[in-house]
Order: sequence, then C-alpha cells, then structure tokens
Amino acid sequence: MSLFTDFYELTMCASYFDNQQFEPATFDLFIRRLPPNRGYLLFAGLEQVLQYLSSVRFTQEHLAYLKTQGFNQPFLDYLRDFKFTGDVWAAPEGTVAFPCEPLIRVTAPIIEAQLVETFLLNTVNLQTMIATKASHVVNAARGKTVIEFGLRREHGIDAGMKVARSSYIAGCQGTSNVLAGLAYGIPVFGTMAHSFIMSYPEEIDAFRAFAKTFPNKSTLLIDTYDDLAGAEKAATVAKELEKAGHKLGGVRLDSGDLEAISKKVRKLLDAKGLEYVKIFASGDLDEFKIAELLKNCAEIDAFGVGTKMGTSADKPYVDVIYKLCETMTAEGVFSPIMKLSEGKVTLPGRKQVYRFKDAEGNYTKDMIALADEKVNAEPLLAKVMENGKVTYDFPSLMEIREAAAENLSKLPSKYKKPKGSQEYPVERSQNLKNMIARLEKTLRNGQA
Amino acid sequence: MSLFTDFYELTMCASYFDNQQFEPATFDLFIRRLPPNRGYLLFAGLEQVLQYLSSVRFTQEHLAYLKTQGFNQPFLDYLRDFKFTGDVWAAPEGTVAFPCEPLIRVTAPIIEAQLVETFLLNTVNLQTMIATKASHVVNAARGKTVIEFGLRREHGIDAGMKVARSSYIAGCQGTSNVLAGLAYGIPVFGTMAHSFIMSYPEEIDAFRAFAKTFPNKSTLLIDTYDDLAGAEKAATVAKELEKAGHKLGGVRLDSGDLEAISKKVRKLLDAKGLEYVKIFASGDLDEFKIAELLKNCAEIDAFGVGTKMGTSADKPYVDVIYKLCETMTAEGVFSPIMKLSEGKVTLPGRKQVYRFKDAEGNYTKDMIALADEKVNAEPLLAKVMENGKVTYDFPSLMEIREAAAENLSKLPSKYKKPKGSQEYPVERSQNLKNMIARLEKTLRNGQA
Repeated sequence: MSLFTDFYELTMCASYFDNQQFEPATFDLFIRRLPPNRGYLLFAGLEQVLQYLSSVRFTQEHLAYLKTQGFNQPFLDYLRDFKFTGDVWAAPEGTVAFPCEPLIRVTAPIIEAQLVETFLLNTVNLQTMIATKASHVVNAARGKTVIEFGLRREHGIDAGMKVARSSYIAGCQGTSNVLAGLAYGIPVFGTMAHSFIMSYPEEIDAFRAFAKTFPNKSTLLIDTYDDLAGAEKAATVAKELEKAGHKLGGVRLDSGDLEAISKKVRKLLDAKGLEYVKIFASGDLDEFKIAELLKNCAEIDAFGVGTKMGTSADKPYVDVIYKLCETMTAEGVFSPIMKLSEGKVTLPGRKQVYRFKDAEGNYTKDMIALADEKVNAEPLLAKVMENGKVTYDFPSLMEIREAAAENLSKLPSKYKKPKGSQEYPVERSQNLKNMIARLEKTLRNGQA
Repeated sequence: MSLFTDFYELTMCASYFDNQQFEPATFDLFIRRLPPNRGYLLFAGLEQVLQYLSSVRFTQEHLAYLKTQGFNQPFLDYLRDFKFTGDVWAAPEGTVAFPCEPLIRVTAPIIEAQLVETFLLNTVNLQTMIATKASHVVNAARGKTVIEFGLRREHGIDAGMKVARSSYIAGCQGTSNVLAGLAYGIPVFGTMAHSFIMSYPEEIDAFRAFAKTFPNKSTLLIDTYDDLAGAEKAATVAKELEKAGHKLGGVRLDSGDLEAISKKVRKLLDAKGLEYVKIFASGDLDEFKIAELLKNCAEIDAFGVGTKMGTSADKPYVDVIYKLCETMTAEGVFSPIMKLSEGKVTLPGRKQVYRFKDAEGNYTKDMIALADEKVNAEPLLAKVMENGKVTYDFPSLMEIREAAAENLSKLPSKYKKPKGSQEYPVERSQNLKNMIARLEKTLRNGQA
C-alpha cells in the first residue's frame, strides 16, 4: 500500500530528503466539523491504520515506477529501506468524538509522518463516516434490529468490507456482505430478491420452493406483485410449514407505504395465528424514515438499511484532516506550529483530549489541552505504537462494538439527535488558548 | 471475490439448486434514473465485470464458511465446481447512456446469473457514477486541465483506484493517486501541502527547498499565510530559478475567493515577466464552482478536484439495478418477465439499444427494442462473453478515454448541462410496447 498515496506526499518527502530534513514532527488527525444531521462522531478505523503503519514498505516494482516519475536515486535508496518508526497515540475505536479533537497523533521523522497521511485520512474518513452514520440509524431504530444491506451501491470492494465492519461497530446486528461475515465474523443476513419470485410462474410456487430449502428461516418477499395478496400467500405457506413442524421466519416489504402496509400485513398475519412471523422492511431507508415509521407505530420488527447508510448519502465524507502541529527546531526542542489560512485554522502543539463525566459516568464536556498539562478528567488518547511497533492489544470487533454501545449510552440524548442536537461542549485549556494567542500574534506580524 | 456478494444471492441459489432450477434466464443491468444535475450517464466498469465473471470461484475456505451458515452439502459440492458459463452482451466503456437502457445483459443458468448480481452492481455503480460526475466536471472546465485529487476522502482502497480510472476515462488529465499511476498508467500529479510550508521557519525557505529538488516542475502552494505575500515570495523564487536556467511550474491556491485572488496573483506574476507560471486552483471544487469561476474569468489554468468528484458528493450512488427480464419455460422457450411493484416497473424480454444519429454523426435519439428486431440505427450492445469466455478485445484505458471523448462530442450540448439539461429522447419500439401491454394485463389479472 505504500503507493496508495497522493503524489505530493512523495514530492514533499523527496524534498525533505534532499534538504536533509529528518527531524521529528507531530501531526494531528481530526475532523474539522460535524456532518449535518449528526450530533457526534463515532471513531473507527484505527486497527487498519496500525496494520498499515507497521507494514508499509516499498517494493522493487514501486521503486522502478517512482524512478520513471523523476525521483532521484538517493531518495529511492532511502525508500527501499523505508519503515515507519514513529510513535502514535490514538483514541480507541468506538470512541464518541467531536470536531477538532485529535483522534490520532503521530510523532515521527517528518518524512515518515508525511508519507503516511493519505492512507490514514482515507481509512479514518471511510470508517468514521460510516460508523457515525450507522450509529444515528441504530439510534433511530430504538432497539429494533438494523441490518446493513448496502453492498451493491457501496464504493467498491474495500468500502463493501469496511462499511460492514463500521456499521457493525455502530450497533447494526449484521450485514448482507458474506465476505465480511467470513473476514470479520459479522453475522450475515439475507432473504430473496424479486427476481426469485419472478422466475416462478406463480408467486406461491416461489415461496414454497424457498421454504423447502430453508424451512425454519425463510423470510418471504411479498411485494413483487401486490403486498396483501403476497402476505396471504405467505400465510398459506406458513400454515403448510406449521403442519410439517416448521415455522416461517418472516415476510419482507421493499416498496410502497411501509407504515400502512406493515399494519395491514401484521393484522392479516395475526388473524391467522401467525403472531410469530416477523415483518422485515427495506427500501430506501435511513434514520429519518425509520424514526418516522416508528413514531407512527409501523408494525416493523427489523430494518434492512442499504444505500443511504452504506454511502452516507446525505454527506458522503467527513472533514477529516491531518495537520502539522509541532516541529523540532535546530536546537532540538519541539516547537508548536499553527496555520492561518482562511477558515482553516489549526490547533498548535502536542495535545490530549480530556473527557469530563458526572457521578453516573455520563459525559458532561471535553477539553482539548496540551499533552503535558494535568487535567482531572479521563484522557481519550493512549499510546498505541512506539518506535513503529504496535504497543496495543487490539480489541476484538465484538469488544469494539460493545465499547461503542457503552460509550454511546453515556452521551446524553440531547446530543444524539440527528436533527437539532445540542452542541456538545468542547473547551480548550487556558494553556492551549495562550499558546494560540501567542502564535497568532507572531504569524500575523511575521508573515503577512 | 465469490463471497463478495449479498447473502440472499446464495440463499436464492441454494433454493434454485434444491429445486433443480438450472434453466437459463436473462438479466438486464441498467440505471433507473439520472442523478440530479446530470444530463447523461457515462458507462464504466465493464473490464472489471468481465475479469470477475471469468474468474469467480469458491475456495475451500469459502465452502467451509458457507457450511457454518447452514448450506447443505450438495449445494456446497455444486459451488466447488462453480464457473460462470453464460453469455454477456454489453455497451463498451465510455458509452454515453441514458436511464433504463440495458448496459450489460447476462444470459446464463439462473443460479449463475443470480450469483454474480452484487459484484456487477457494485462495480458499475462506482465506476459509472464517477465517470458521469467527472465528465460533467470536465465539461465545466471548458478544456482547462482537471486533475483528480480526491484520494483521501474516497471510500477506501478500491474506490481510490477506480475513481482515478473512471475520472481519467471521463477526461481528467491525471490523478494524485500514485498506485493508480502504476496500475493503470494514468499520469500522476501533485504539489505540496501546507504542512511542508509550515515545517520551515519562513515560507520562502520552504519554496526554495522544494524548488531545489524539483527545479523545473515545482508548483508552490501560496495560501498558507497570505496569498499575495505568498505569490511575491514565489515570484522571487521563480526569478532565482530563472538565473539558474530553470522555470517555476506554477503556484497553487487552495482557499479563499479563488476568482479575486487568481486575478491579483496573475497580475502580480505578469508584472514580473512570469507569464509562463501557471495558476493551479483547488479546494472544495465541483462542476458548479468551476463553471462560475470561468464565467467570471478567473485566471486559473488547471483545477485539482477532490472530494466532491471522488465521492460524487451530491449523489453518491446511481440507481443501478439488475433485473430478470426473461426465463425459460418448461417447454424450453424463453418467455419475457416483468415486475409491477410500485415505481419499480421493469422492461421485459431480451433487448437491444439502438442509437439514431444525424448526418454529422450527432446523437438524435435512442430506441430500446427487442433483441431480434431490425432497427436501422447503431446497436449499443455487443457480445463480450460467450459460454463464460471473454470474446472481446479489451481496449486500453487510453482507447476507452478517447472513445468517451468522441462519444461525448456527438451528444448535443443541450443534453450536457449539469443544471436544466433537456431530456434526451429514449423511445421504446412498438414491439416492446406491445409486449409490455400484454404482460401488464396478464399480471394485473393473474396476481392481484
């Protein structure tokens, strides 16, 4: 993956090398602002970041290609032996986070720290964007099952895998992606498509054929021709299954007015003693539609959520950035750095994030402080890599999922609404404020 | 990639197998509607589709996993020997296409045709979405250079690669993604980040260091502290380069009012005899911002377009679907199939798309007809795979890119506007209309 990078990372590194700039520097990875309709961020992607940092190397093929792009031999020789040797501090996956809080902090020789930027941003962008979106969908479902069903419209193979992972972290119960089931141990779910129904002359033949193969776990798609007629036929098959000692799992609705249809279907099924048959809904769902359906008491037991969650359709990226915050001076001491470009101000210095909690453990506010300050609250960043070696016991995906649920339970609900959430307070320590004021003054005098 | 699929593809196939359904069927892959702000679709992704179809297999590990998911041994034995053996007709990549036109048509034993659905949709969704979006961006740039710069916020590794590929097909001049340069031979571009500037005590030191390494192709980022002060320093470095017999490539603006600043920077550079120094702009660009900048005569020579193009941010998916359109009856003849679900009607039968042109070769209208109809116009679909073997000479990426440019030049500009495009006429042949009417009648009588 070493060439999975923006070209400018390599040109900058070539110039650092050429100018013998090997001093360490610190970069913060953080998200500048919340996407609309989100009250918080759910951080994900650290495992893949650390795997990358501990394994990134340049092959002969890479070096031969870079030679064709005009890089000189001394730099290529440097890349031949390239390893990431820095220290990394990070928040654990499943951490509830807010804008401008460093999520990953990298301290390494500046060439190394710069070279890894693109991969880190790409990874955290995808997984944190999806975990955040999926978490808001799961909240909207108020304890009802949500399954991630978006594989066909997620952005390629890696997205298909990482969306399944991140939405599982966020509380989805499973995915339709079978490869994610194999790779991550995530429960996989699926029913049938309209094509299956249509491939049989009669709808009920399709139901019977499917129920024959899966007599105890069939979910029958009933909207291919007419929902209620489909529900009648599903009920007939359910009764046939009962006689053979089996039970129909559920029916699925995938179109139309899900609220009205689900109520009619529930009534129809209940009238036949099929209270145990679940109603599964899919089709263009997101957190807003789910909230609306449940507010109106739609008779839906589980939701299959696809494209809108799997592409984070209302905002298909987070404003994640990776910014230099300190460099080492010629005297060998770290010195804080800040940027002034319009609307793109950064926070200087090596920092830590502290979380304040009330007596019940509920989050009350965060504070971004300098790393060496003493603050009487829980620090979010811990050391996860030292001299290029992982110093972190990777939690299992299930442990990350449980941590995320626990963390989210501690965030008061006023901060969790997809629309009109209150802004969670994130303060800056007095020392950090003083540093910012001092640097702003210097910059405005010195460079303008 | 065999398990990179929705679970329901496998459950349906298991049931087809269990019920000994091996007859061939035909599926159409098409896009139901245009995304907003697009006048047409630019089809991409066929090469990866055919690579997948000719190589999809189940490994022992896959089969062992599927066994844990409740599939029975006879079906697993079937999968052990699974190969795709069908026929595929498709439009070439770089084809200008419109809603409901089949782009890929698969005829194969129904288990095979069903099993491959998810991968085909995922691949065509990503690449066609991006090629379409990027094509509208390139149109807006009116011949000026557009470079794809979105890697850091594209959705994972595969998206990073395929966005570079599809946007190059659409007419971008290159990408920042170095691995895409290696894998696809796409030209790679890059300048420098703010962090590079900030790592030096003085901005001009950073410019000099970079120019030392790349004396003839440096593009200096001038907005870290103050654009015009940055431009002054870049001009100083350009003059130093001139003395050493070199030439500064350009300057880059990445924030602020690009129109106003570009005009001031151009004036400043020209006043110093630096007319040859290009102005490169980036920062939150899309087709609308580029059109506005050029309308107002911004002095910009090239655009770096990132997140909004690389995630297709205003609509991060296309409504691509894969629908059964014919099955084989017990008598061994193909019979057309149609679906009636609300708002999701499909077109029955095996079809071809014909494109009508005027005397200059400009597109005038399309017609969706039955595959065996004679229509005096250019058919868009050609056979690309027979009995599971590719029967198609893959064009090179450059050839696809040239074909796309040629095709787009034949689409009248009234259909190409991102806002307020006229709707391109896509008709249905009389035979197709008659078939639809007949099936609708049967369905409404038979199933409701």
